[in-house]
Amino acid sequence: MSDVADWWRTEIIDMEPGRIHLRGIPIQELIGQVGFAEMIWLMVRGDRPDPAQARLFEAALVSAVDHGPQAPSIAAARMAVTCGLPLNNAMATAVNMLGDVHGGAGEQAVEMFHALRRAESVAAGLDGWIAARGKIIPGYGHRFHTPVDPRAPRLMALTREAVAAGACSGAFMALGEAVEAELAARKGRPIPMNIDGATAVIYAELGFAPPLARGLFCLSRSVGILAHAWEQQQQRGRNKGPTPPQYRWTYDGP
Amino acid sequence: MSDVADWWRTEIIDMEPGRIHLRGIPIQELIGQVGFAEMIWLMVRGDRPDPAQARLFEAALVSAVDHGPQAPSIAAARMAVTCGLPLNNAMATAVNMLGDVHGGAGEQAVEMFHALRRAESVAAGLDGWIAARGKIIPGYGHRFHTPVDPRAPRLMALTREAVAAGACSGAFMALGEAVEAELAARKGRPIPMNIDGATAVIYAELGFAPPLARGLFCLSRSVGILAHAWEQQQQRGRNKGPTPPQYRWTYDGP
Amino acid sequence: MSDVADWWRTEIIDMEPGRIHLRGIPIQELIGQVGFAEMIWLMVRGDRPDPAQARLFEAALVSAVDHGPQAPSIAAARMAVTCGLPLNNAMATAVNMLGDVHGGAGEQAVEMFHALRRAESVAAGLDGWIAARGKIIPGYGHRFHTPVDPRAPRLMALTREAVAAGACSGAFMALGEAVEAELAARKGRPIPMNIDGATAVIYAELGFAPPLARGLFCLSRSVGILAHAWEQQQQRGRNKGPTPPQYRWTYDGP
Amino acid sequence: MSDVADWWRTEIIDMEPGRIHLRGIPIQELIGQVGFAEMIWLMVRGDRPDPAQARLFEAALVSAVDHGPQAPSIAAARMAVTCGLPLNNAMATAVNMLGDVHGGAGEQAVEMFHALRRAESVAAGLDGWIAARGKIIPGYGHRFHTPVDPRAPRLMALTREAVAAGACSGAFMALGEAVEAELAARKGRPIPMNIDGATAVIYAELGFAPPLARGLFCLSRSVGILAHAWEQQQQRGRNKGPTPPQYRWTYDGP
Repeated sequence: MSDVADWWRTEIIDMEPGRIHLRGIPIQELIGQVGFAEMIWLMVRGDRPDPAQARLFEAALVSAVDHGPQAPSIAAARMAVTCGLPLNNAMATAVNMLGDVHGGAGEQAVEMFHALRRAESVAAGLDGWIAARGKIIPGYGHRFHTPVDPRAPRLMALTREAVAAGACSGAFMALGEAVEAELAARKGRPIPMNIDGATAVIYAELGFAPPLARGLFCLSRSVGILAHAWEQQQQRGRNKGPTPPQYRWTYDGP
Repeated sequence: MSDVADWWRTEIIDMEPGRIHLRGIPIQELIGQVGFAEMIWLMVRGDRPDPAQARLFEAALVSAVDHGPQAPSIAAARMAVTCGLPLNNAMATAVNMLGDVHGGAGEQAVEMFHALRRAESVAAGLDGWIAARGKIIPGYGHRFHTPVDPRAPRLMALTREAVAAGACSGAFMALGEAVEAELAARKGRPIPMNIDGATAVIYAELGFAPPLARGLFCLSRSVGILAHAWEQQQQRGRNKGPTPPQYRWTYDGP
Repeated sequence: MSDVADWWRTEIIDMEPGRIHLRGIPIQELIGQVGFAEMIWLMVRGDRPDPAQARLFEAALVSAVDHGPQAPSIAAARMAVTCGLPLNNAMATAVNMLGDVHGGAGEQAVEMFHALRRAESVAAGLDGWIAARGKIIPGYGHRFHTPVDPRAPRLMALTREAVAAGACSGAFMALGEAVEAELAARKGRPIPMNIDGATAVIYAELGFAPPLARGLFCLSRSVGILAHAWEQQQQRGRNKGPTPPQYRWTYDGP
Repeated sequence: MSDVADWWRTEIIDMEPGRIHLRGIPIQELIGQVGFAEMIWLMVRGDRPDPAQARLFEAALVSAVDHGPQAPSIAAARMAVTCGLPLNNAMATAVNMLGDVHGGAGEQAVEMFHALRRAESVAAGLDGWIAARGKIIPGYGHRFHTPVDPRAPRLMALTREAVAAGACSGAFMALGEAVEAELAARKGRPIPMNIDGATAVIYAELGFAPPLARGLFCLSRSVGILAHAWEQQQQRGRNKGPTPPQYRWTYDGP
């Protein structure tokens, strides 16, 4: 029957009745010993961060928890609760929305940083990225936060500290800043790094593969999603539409 | 136009261009200062835990991250990846499954503990619960982990330490143990507290409302969901069914 | 190995390489021979409707396809597309929202009709329903469509024709009308049957169990969800929030 | 306030209290007059099929309703029910899985057919497709149904009838057959058209844009998803894992 058990193979968890090992460590030795952020790292990667890495990682997770009910995901979580959904379904509805456009910028930015590392120069790498992927540069500029996204400089300052402490190399930090400089030169005005760019720098510095930038963002934003869903549950309401009921949509058909 | 802005009201986040306050605190003062678990507490409740509370809370979050690919949610996350879904959609698919049966036991246990507090005795309260909600006692017994779920005693030991440190009252801890004793007396054999019972004790001790026991479980399990989805993405595979392809289902129709 | 194949048992589909039988019928004999509505009936129930039943069933499916972008599900589908989700994920996001409040009224109305059948009188049955389930009578009244939901009288007229044609007994139609009369008498004004009440009458007349009233509503509403998601995809847009960007939410925290 | 109503614009639905127009037609004139398949066409496109088009469209919708519990989506729907989810959430969980790999072949095949139309020859077009998109030719071959997917020839026969009746041009039918011939010549053995190829031919013949091939597949497969979810609900079961509990997964970590 080994074919049946082999169909589901994993390096993450080993289990017998009364015994749970995660990444080779008995669960009871983890509970109360490791922080939640460190546990995320262990589960996703199989190893453990050193303290300076853990601190930087935790900062990235903290930074992205919420951006308010104008974000489609947060609005959806709140609507879902008023449709009668329990919190797990409301959270899933919202996380589902963190697609390429709403939740993919961090992943794309890590991909871009990796592509830039392989390019002859930042300028050439950016040209190649634009040719292949279009003119939106993931991780830079913000349609709302002008002149600057307050999360990015704080995250970059922490990255600088981590580099100084030897927690990571600084290669992606330098790349992230070089892109910022290149964009400013090209546009004649600052296109500052935003939260997706800054967390992408951090996740790349810490060795996370691009898709994990999205996955970790989903974990982080799930916190705000839960907070908003729960607040809406306490506010009550039934079948909450996107706008107050007195404004219906505009019919512009024939 | 205040009616439009008022349609979406929140106490969680306040925002202007270049400025994000979460629960009244500038985001840049949180990043690098609070841990991820503490951030969850702050976002969901609006206040901050003391260090002993934070430690107990973090232990509960760490304890429930994974239970392996036999869990329908974890299997679904892995399948979803092989269907071509990016991590956000795979995670949403899995979290969606944490319904009343798969993810609701903690919430139900907190509800039960609250009901027992209002009852004349634990025995009377349990009778009332069974009459109203059926014979499944949420948070006790485990179909797989015999004789005991290794997470529960560890969590209860930490709870005992937290009570000793004044982080919480111990009232729900005592209730949890009284239920265990009552069930053992009724059945003539131990029906030990499981992880849902132990985390329910902790969340109730820390003052979280019952639905949040489910919501926090979703955050915790999302970690394992992400780890498994990512591992599956690296293993590749296309349209992974539940069993190896050589075993189809049994047709038992006419 | 039969235990593995037996783990997934079904009466719905039987399959070998080159051969697919649905409910015992070769798929190639169904394609081009049965309508889509009849196929739904066959798949869900295992038998086939007579023509008058099929016509009434199809009318119910047609009636509920859309209620506009103020409905949280439709708004969510449209938002999801602007977050970068393909149509399957956008549709799932929306269908997920058809919970107890947004998509459950039909199921609840069928349950209520079954309860009323077992009651001594409609009045007594309604009292019992209200005592057990609260004062919202599913399937009656509409917060928007005053004086009357235009779908309900049309569906009831078709039900009357179907009863005359012997397609169903008329027992639930009579109950549905008796509830309307009783509510009007109690309130001193009409509380007319709405679409959920009318489709519940039809599904109950045709012998569908209560949960299927919700399931069939999901199939029906999926049509409007797809239409709106596709329209939004053509309109483009990125990260569409619930309200225009110039109206943010109201912060009402401390 | 027109900016608020304008935020949600649609050509699909126009509504006032007591009045619902879908695609310009009062809902009560649609109920009982148009079939469910025709209603899908009307909602998605805004016009109405002629009878021969409607018949072909309906055949495509009927053909794809189910492929059994080995399909990850169907398995997920059944698992979801055992996790305590109501039918809407179970259906959403399953439809969510119909991603690029599990539900995208029809969309990709329509895209390919459009690309082939613009190519100098089928052979050149296929080479271009493979160069751009990889060696998997969507809509051809089947890992299970050998020698042939029984749905495809039946659908193609109906397409041939529809072309003869003037319902569509036959251009995509000819392309579909030319691809089949080209693949057979290249491989030295038949790689027959499968259901995704055949429905792609039909949807392309009827003028549906590529993403709608996926959207319509989602509607079609939702029928099987509902049937399986409902059957599982009647079979009961709690937290149904992918394999019988006696087979756990294989731990292959360090």
